[in-house]
Amino acid sequence: MSTQPHGVLRVIGSDRPGLVADVANLLFRLGANILHADDHIDVEAGLFFQRVEFALGGEVAGADRERLRGQIGQTCEQWKMRWSLRWTDAPIRVALLTSKHPHCTLDLLARHRAGELACEIPLVLSNHPDLELEVTRRGYRYVHEPIQAGEKRAQEQRMQAHLEAEHIDLVVLARYMQILSRDFVAPWSERILNIHHSFLPAFAGAEPYKQAYRRGVKLIGATSHYVTADLDEGPIVWQDVTRVSHRDAVPDLVRKGRDLERVVLANAVRCHLEDRIIAYGNKTVVFD
Amino acid sequence: MSTQPHGVLRVIGSDRPGLVADVANLLFRLGANILHADDHIDVEAGLFFQRVEFALGGEVAGADRERLRGQIGQTCEQWKMRWSLRWTDAPIRVALLTSKHPHCTLDLLARHRAGELACEIPLVLSNHPDLELEVTRRGYRYVHEPIQAGEKRAQEQRMQAHLEAEHIDLVVLARYMQILSRDFVAPWSERILNIHHSFLPAFAGAEPYKQAYRRGVKLIGATSHYVTADLDEGPIVWQDVTRVSHRDAVPDLVRKGRDLERVVLANAVRCHLEDRIIAYGNKTVVFD
Amino acid sequence: MSTQPHGVLRVIGSDRPGLVADVANLLFRLGANILHADDHIDVEAGLFFQRVEFALGGEVAGADRERLRGQIGQTCEQWKMRWSLRWTDAPIRVALLTSKHPHCTLDLLARHRAGELACEIPLVLSNHPDLELEVTRRGYRYVHEPIQAGEKRAQEQRMQAHLEAEHIDLVVLARYMQILSRDFVAPWSERILNIHHSFLPAFAGAEPYKQAYRRGVKLIGATSHYVTADLDEGPIVWQDVTRVSHRDAVPDLVRKGRDLERVVLANAVRCHLEDRIIAYGNKTVVFD
Amino acid sequence: MSTQPHGVLRVIGSDRPGLVADVANLLFRLGANILHADDHIDVEAGLFFQRVEFALGGEVAGADRERLRGQIGQTCEQWKMRWSLRWTDAPIRVALLTSKHPHCTLDLLARHRAGELACEIPLVLSNHPDLELEVTRRGYRYVHEPIQAGEKRAQEQRMQAHLEAEHIDLVVLARYMQILSRDFVAPWSERILNIHHSFLPAFAGAEPYKQAYRRGVKLIGATSHYVTADLDEGPIVWQDVTRVSHRDAVPDLVRKGRDLERVVLANAVRCHLEDRIIAYGNKTVVFD
Repeated sequence: MSTQPHGVLRVIGSDRPGLVADVANLLFRLGANILHADDHIDVEAGLFFQRVEFALGGEVAGADRERLRGQIGQTCEQWKMRWSLRWTDAPIRVALLTSKHPHCTLDLLARHRAGELACEIPLVLSNHPDLELEVTRRGYRYVHEPIQAGEKRAQEQRMQAHLEAEHIDLVVLARYMQILSRDFVAPWSERILNIHHSFLPAFAGAEPYKQAYRRGVKLIGATSHYVTADLDEGPIVWQDVTRVSHRDAVPDLVRKGRDLERVVLANAVRCHLEDRIIAYGNKTVVFD
Repeated sequence: MSTQPHGVLRVIGSDRPGLVADVANLLFRLGANILHADDHIDVEAGLFFQRVEFALGGEVAGADRERLRGQIGQTCEQWKMRWSLRWTDAPIRVALLTSKHPHCTLDLLARHRAGELACEIPLVLSNHPDLELEVTRRGYRYVHEPIQAGEKRAQEQRMQAHLEAEHIDLVVLARYMQILSRDFVAPWSERILNIHHSFLPAFAGAEPYKQAYRRGVKLIGATSHYVTADLDEGPIVWQDVTRVSHRDAVPDLVRKGRDLERVVLANAVRCHLEDRIIAYGNKTVVFD
Repeated sequence: MSTQPHGVLRVIGSDRPGLVADVANLLFRLGANILHADDHIDVEAGLFFQRVEFALGGEVAGADRERLRGQIGQTCEQWKMRWSLRWTDAPIRVALLTSKHPHCTLDLLARHRAGELACEIPLVLSNHPDLELEVTRRGYRYVHEPIQAGEKRAQEQRMQAHLEAEHIDLVVLARYMQILSRDFVAPWSERILNIHHSFLPAFAGAEPYKQAYRRGVKLIGATSHYVTADLDEGPIVWQDVTRVSHRDAVPDLVRKGRDLERVVLANAVRCHLEDRIIAYGNKTVVFD
Repeated sequence: MSTQPHGVLRVIGSDRPGLVADVANLLFRLGANILHADDHIDVEAGLFFQRVEFALGGEVAGADRERLRGQIGQTCEQWKMRWSLRWTDAPIRVALLTSKHPHCTLDLLARHRAGELACEIPLVLSNHPDLELEVTRRGYRYVHEPIQAGEKRAQEQRMQAHLEAEHIDLVVLARYMQILSRDFVAPWSERILNIHHSFLPAFAGAEPYKQAYRRGVKLIGATSHYVTADLDEGPIVWQDVTRVSHRDAVPDLVRKGRDLERVVLANAVRCHLEDRIIAYGNKTVVFD
């Protein structure tokens, strides 16, 4: 695997003739060697989506990158496209928010350590002290911000300050068991990923495994989605399910669900970090 | 495979010491050779479930069967258990109810012809004429009972008359697109199986694939359940899902869903025919 | 869904800078409105793959199509790419080869009738007479070409003559239980699809369900692949598996396997018909 | 969940009339309250399998347990059954053998810490020093036994000595990358679990992900099995697969495979610890 940094360009815009050719020509003129290219056209919505991962020959100095960004921006604006360009050597800074359940948090840290997640994780924030030892002895920073009665908003503001101080790009709710306020969520559009322990939209809200047990479903699921102001309603990024039977009581669902949650959240985070997700309306394109 | 008829005993009752031994002793005294035995205990509900499939040496005349039934009944009543006993040479009589979509109906008929479903299918009932040719040229009887404006209840009564005339034991809604009235459903408790084209409880009601598309889920499902007076709320028997992506528009979901629906409904019907299902409350034990 | 015919272009060639832009420019200059575009780069092999589905404004007469074909051909040859161009209103002609097991053959015919497979099926060929009634009463032509002792090659030649007479483009082995000779296979490179009832490369050869039962695997599978001279070794197009347990004897594996085989083969056929498959070496790119 | 210890009885023997009743009567006479009961009959082999989990009212002193064991043994021997009886408060002692890949080892330790695996893990043994820090800072003992050139057997003997000194009941090969000798394996029949990173019997031997990539399969798998003298040939306990495509190069298969391996091995270990597995010949019954 080359260690040379790649650029990742994502565009979304109205689908019109010539657009594909224009983007291709632009990248060619810029000397980009395309490594991966994924297109999608939502015929019904008349939208075009593209993700291109490319390398440039040799080193790409900061000035070159800025010039490139300018040229791409110019083309994209001509076509009235939303776009983003990121370099793989400018890793995303991630904060994990957690409560008491360790499995998602520790799993993400283990994947990070194993090199599976190309990001920095300068901060694990929690409203509980429980996971401090486990997190810190893996070498990560743990900040405990408890919620005092009646001052939930103040705690959110303290968390917000930590996120800003650490220049966080992505917040991952790794079984953070508090509902975040509309004010907290607003500035983080498409930059907060949550794991919900059900196959949404089934069993939104509290205690989904108990709900699933009571309803007698034969499969349980987990869903990772971007967080919006409407609880459990944001754009879905990844889902998976596993089979259960009458032999599985709630603790069995919880145990089986943990394995789902870990993998589903990890896949969503990986796709976000690799700029594979384009959200639009309440949906996502995931180029995986 | 032996062609000798088997007995299938299902029991459900309060879980108490001695119950398992008593049932085992009873079957032993009756000379039953146990072929399959499945137990389940719902610890929370304090309930015991058992399915035993057994053979008796040689022929079992009608009189013997009645005596056996009497003895089993006596034991089960001592323990205040619900029970059923069926012989595999007394096949269940099944009616399919359908509307216009052919896939579930024709799939069940093909499985029946292939010997996969141990039942008789003397009747396919429909509120539309569309599938008549396909059904009759496979050698099955098709009865068209249209719904005239304002006389839905009358049509149900005509259907009910057909079901009675044919001594139907099980009604399978193979994409029957009408909501059955409470009156129609009442006498058929745990004897009507439906296929709903979503992973219930997500996307209950009309046009689940459109709902799924709009919500942007990453998996679609199908659910077979017993029909109760509450639409899409009956005990779930079988569910499965398949992966979808942003590349799948509604027609793709419909196509992928058809394969799910067929297999999910067929599994539910097979389990019912083999007495593998014990429904209790709004849940099922499925000994598969 | 528009009924206007689409063009589908597939290309495969050495991955070089400018190639993507050149193909995009070509299609733009030709006035193509791109409906779907999928690229893939096999970095290790240095190969570029693309499938583009496009519409042209209004009618496209035969002469226009030829001119288009010429221009595309010219560009592709400059880049030394293998390519194909097909129009969706020139449906592929498919022959099914079958023996005695009906499930795959009848399933494909049912999908064809339901409009799920965009092709013509002018011919079902078999070395046995068993399925004649089922096939013909669905309105398809059935030709029985039995294999006499010692004259297997002669039977293949008779089959080959039927395929030629019917201008067949794709041969689907729907549980055809004879091994085809190297001579028969040779002219049909990447145009014969087989269904093998195991998860290849596990359990190649005869009686895979018995092999699976004996080995005690916990999942069984089915594999659809292009047929090459080496039995069960051709490029894999589609695979799927289902869970089994100690409770499943060989007949249960056969029953569960039938559902797999149907869906796996149907997906492979659909992908071939929609020009979604590009085979290279012993592998495939499947743009699904 | 009760903290009162349970007994778990497993029996396997020739299937004969009266056997089920005799076991049920025995447990009833002993005052056992049955919590779970699973039976299986392998009709072809004429074998009966049973797993019964039971509680006795109140405390069960050591002497009572011995008497119970004697009575069960007597009955089982009359029926010439292989049997085992274990108490859930006598946890199994597990050693992990590992090399350099951390994911399975650390995953099992995390599950152990989370209370998901009812066992003791007094020992992690490795032929490499790499994982020492990660293991020890989680509070587990790590012993490094390197393999010097030409003295592999000596290293095995040192490992064997550690296993004996720690009274190990179960050895888990958590990506231990050495082939164990026949002599090492012999005394551990059905007490060594391995994880192989393919869907066996496909891709046995070295580098299965590379083999899978070259063969172009569309699913990759993982298999946990008991280790016998024949490499990758022992009785399979658990398997699972995940979908891959042409977009997945070998490093993607490795990444996706890690998630499979973790879950497959953990399920196999859990089933062993809960006495859910009965191996016979080269197969297993897994009562899950």
